[in-house]
Amino acid sequence: MKAVCLLSGGLDSATCLAFARREGFECFALSFDYGQRHAVELDAARRVAAALGAAAHRTAKIDLRVFGHSALTDDIDVPKGRDVASMSEGIPVTYVPARNTIFLSFALAWAEVLEASDIFIGVNALDYSGYPDCRPEFIEAFETMANLATKAGVEGRTKIRIQTPLIALSKAGIVQLGTELGVPFGLTHSCYDPFPDGRVCGACDSCLLRARGFREAGVVDPCA
Amino acid sequence: MKAVCLLSGGLDSATCLAFARREGFECFALSFDYGQRHAVELDAARRVAAALGAAAHRTAKIDLRVFGHSALTDDIDVPKGRDVASMSEGIPVTYVPARNTIFLSFALAWAEVLEASDIFIGVNALDYSGYPDCRPEFIEAFETMANLATKAGVEGRTKIRIQTPLIALSKAGIVQLGTELGVPFGLTHSCYDPFPDGRVCGACDSCLLRARGFREAGVVDPCA
Repeated sequence: MKAVCLLSGGLDSATCLAFARREGFECFALSFDYGQRHAVELDAARRVAAALGAAAHRTAKIDLRVFGHSALTDDIDVPKGRDVASMSEGIPVTYVPARNTIFLSFALAWAEVLEASDIFIGVNALDYSGYPDCRPEFIEAFETMANLATKAGVEGRTKIRIQTPLIALSKAGIVQLGTELGVPFGLTHSCYDPFPDGRVCGACDSCLLRARGFREAGVVDPCA
Repeated sequence: MKAVCLLSGGLDSATCLAFARREGFECFALSFDYGQRHAVELDAARRVAAALGAAAHRTAKIDLRVFGHSALTDDIDVPKGRDVASMSEGIPVTYVPARNTIFLSFALAWAEVLEASDIFIGVNALDYSGYPDCRPEFIEAFETMANLATKAGVEGRTKIRIQTPLIALSKAGIVQLGTELGVPFGLTHSCYDPFPDGRVCGACDSCLLRARGFREAGVVDPCA
């Protein structure tokens, strides 16, 4: 069984890939070079894909900056030192418009070429930091659409499934699952705004959520 | 009212843009540089956007070749001289996997940034040449998904509509509508496999469908 696995190089997508591998899938890992300020995560994605035995790893170059408007791709400051409890209120400036829709669309294209039935994405509804495209109802609607968009769907050959094994987990739950699955946490990268040498800032939403997850899981983060 | 209008530079998308303009929309035209062998259509898109008074025109560069597998982006030969009646049987080699899903996802991203409520796409179910992502049921499923994917949808501010004014028209009907709307047909480009100097091949599916449409509409094609 083949699966396309979206892989940012962060903790969540690495755990998601490890989960898909344990389920027995031949995994085709897909990353995006979308002009993100944290391009160091693409190096992390390559290392994680190799360490977890992905059958292939591709990086698709897309230009989301053509539409502007996000702290992850623009010159807006990434917020620092926010209270973790308030992160899920409202939609943060780090939101990239329609990002998961675009990423899943590319995954769908590759799945169609590979004749893969499954697409794995490490979205998380609990610690989703206010992103609309991390919610279960979005994922279900995407799956319905995907089955109408493709040759396999039209011809009734393959039912495309969008798999979200982390969707109901807390960050601590993801760390626990990743520990069970032997995810090489030290190879992952989560920071939105790393220093030029790749060191994490420790203060952006992503760093703070990660730190709390490891702390609550009672696991030492090798990147901290 | 703002709308994002997908614009390939061909007859259909030009007519679709002219329709959106007549409906009173401020139109933001979006084209894609996806490694297509017929890149001359991007010049056509620029000319058409300017002639029809688009408020802006952007070309997003994306790399669909990373997944391979289409005569429009690979080195597979574009089929020539096919019988028009047989084109809608099966899915042709010129099919690009998940192309409209990807294009609409980018349109959705720009719509979100612009706070536009409408996305126009010139798909056509009748002469759709076997592409699954040109069917009404696909468009409806995409619209449902789009309204769950976006900030505006989550906050209940904007209902995103995917508008397909050409979906039920024959190619002749599109030529008639385009004539009424004053579409500058001479600026459009439809050929899948043009000569290096931009002249059309006259024998690919797209050329043959276009020729038949003009003939049946009793209109002279300035590009023929």
